Amino acid sequence: MSEPAFIAGDWGTSRLRLYLCDVSGHVLARAEGEGAAVPDCAGRFKAAVAPWDKSHGKLPALLGGMVGSTVGWKEVPYLSCPARPEALAAAALRFEQDGRAIAIIPGLKCVNRTGAPDVMRGEEVQILGALNLYPALANGRHIFCMPGTHAKWVAVEDGAVTEFQTAPSGELFELLRKHSVLARDGGEVRADSHAFAQGLDFFRRNAQADLLHLLFSTRARVVTGEMPKADGASYLSGLVLGADVGTAVSLLGLIPEDTVHLICTPALAALYGKALAQYGVKTRVLDGDACALAGLVRIHAEIFS
Amino acid sequence: MSEPAFIAGDWGTSRLRLYLCDVSGHVLARAEGEGAAVPDCAGRFKAAVAPWDKSHGKLPALLGGMVGSTVGWKEVPYLSCPARPEALAAAALRFEQDGRAIAIIPGLKCVNRTGAPDVMRGEEVQILGALNLYPALANGRHIFCMPGTHAKWVAVEDGAVTEFQTAPSGELFELLRKHSVLARDGGEVRADSHAFAQGLDFFRRNAQADLLHLLFSTRARVVTGEMPKADGASYLSGLVLGADVGTAVSLLGLIPEDTVHLICTPALAALYGKALAQYGVKTRVLDGDACALAGLVRIHAEIFS
Repeated sequence: MSEPAFIAGDWGTSRLRLYLCDVSGHVLARAEGEGAAVPDCAGRFKAAVAPWDKSHGKLPALLGGMVGSTVGWKEVPYLSCPARPEALAAAALRFEQDGRAIAIIPGLKCVNRTGAPDVMRGEEVQILGALNLYPALANGRHIFCMPGTHAKWVAVEDGAVTEFQTAPSGELFELLRKHSVLARDGGEVRADSHAFAQGLDFFRRNAQADLLHLLFSTRARVVTGEMPKADGASYLSGLVLGADVGTAVSLLGLIPEDTVHLICTPALAALYGKALAQYGVKTRVLDGDACALAGLVRIHAEIFS
Repeated sequence: MSEPAFIAGDWGTSRLRLYLCDVSGHVLARAEGEGAAVPDCAGRFKAAVAPWDKSHGKLPALLGGMVGSTVGWKEVPYLSCPARPEALAAAALRFEQDGRAIAIIPGLKCVNRTGAPDVMRGEEVQILGALNLYPALANGRHIFCMPGTHAKWVAVEDGAVTEFQTAPSGELFELLRKHSVLARDGGEVRADSHAFAQGLDFFRRNAQADLLHLLFSTRARVVTGEMPKADGASYLSGLVLGADVGTAVSLLGLIPEDTVHLICTPALAALYGKALAQYGVKTRVLDGDACALAGLVRIHAEIFS
């Protein structure tokens, strides 16, 4: 049995996930807690790791995500792109709390292809992990996509993050599904359904129209009898992911036979795979948890070893 | 003092507004109630008008909006476009309930410029009213816009509604403002603010990007210190209305010096006026309540007089 070496934490706005790791990043135990936006991160962290402290003493802790934002524990400034993920360790905010060494990892910022500033906190650890797990990705230009609440499209060139692009696709879809009349009782999203493909296709064929003028078709197709109510969620998902992927393809200049590396769950990978296939773009799926852990192990080795 | 002649009802998904009118449409009394999506429209209507019944007997009632949908009181099929608003009276569903004559007005349907079906229920009464209040609008082609939860862009040619286009701009903005992190503590929307103009301009300059890839800039501009947090709501409103107006201008082929007739409140008219002015399109504001009442009076005259 390997020895616990450090505590890794993925501390987003709405949830804390803690891992007790050995020096190679094998997870020996897990714990969960409330997100970084809830007050008193210090007190909540201490309570969450108390059982581990009792057994193993105060191990160093490495935290990434919104915990380093203005609403989190302590603010850690963003690193500007182009940024080599190795720079994350050097720029981490290190401090001691109750006799424990803690490091909070910085996020990244850039000016994206629309001309606006863009930011990430947490995904940069997954990128670092992916580059460590798959060293071939550290040469040449590669596009990563992390679908989710705020989907990130990231360009990495010769191992440095050069630019990225955020689309709040997951958040928008969930808000519309839960609170709007557009897809009420709209069933579950199925990647292999006709309705999902129809949503994707409807966006792609309407280059002149913004998503905003396409959304209402979800409801209108149902009330005019063209689409069963139970297809609503799949169709709406097709529209939203169609807009996400179609815009990313255009902004990042993706062409047929290009590959996008998806870092996510299998369910999201199936949806984004279909959406990208419309443009002839191939996908390769990397496990999100594995990438995050590999990134944290790498940073641990640089900071605490 | 004029005699009460009929009861007019604007019965949407979330609210019932009742007017006790004389034969010319002067409003003698008002009442409110819950929307048409709440069960037992018949019982709730009876209770709402009981005080008027006591004083004036059972006056005929004319109801428009979602009350005629599958989730309302009784379903009244949509009329297909092109539709002359005068046809609304002929297609109304007439029945007697508890000894009272009731007519529910049909909605309209069309295939819009994106190729999808589109529907309206309630706005058609306002269009009819506008054509009655301003007879010059019944000749030639005129574009109307009814901003709101589900904004409608309507083309009227020689007095007939030929096509329309729905954008859920108000709903999307409210969902994002209330539930998302994008514009948390984002202040109030001000049509004359720099932030609103910046949101409009940012959409217009990014023809390649869908709104979905622009929304996150609301948050990123704040966390990078470029925009004060209190400007968030105005900026986000600029983005959403920019997408609504920009797409409508494109789909409906509007050109500089065209006029759009806005049927809405003064606050929404100020926002849409600014958004349309970006494209050189002029606006003329028609009062929403006045148009709705004029439409109901016209239908009353055809059905009950």
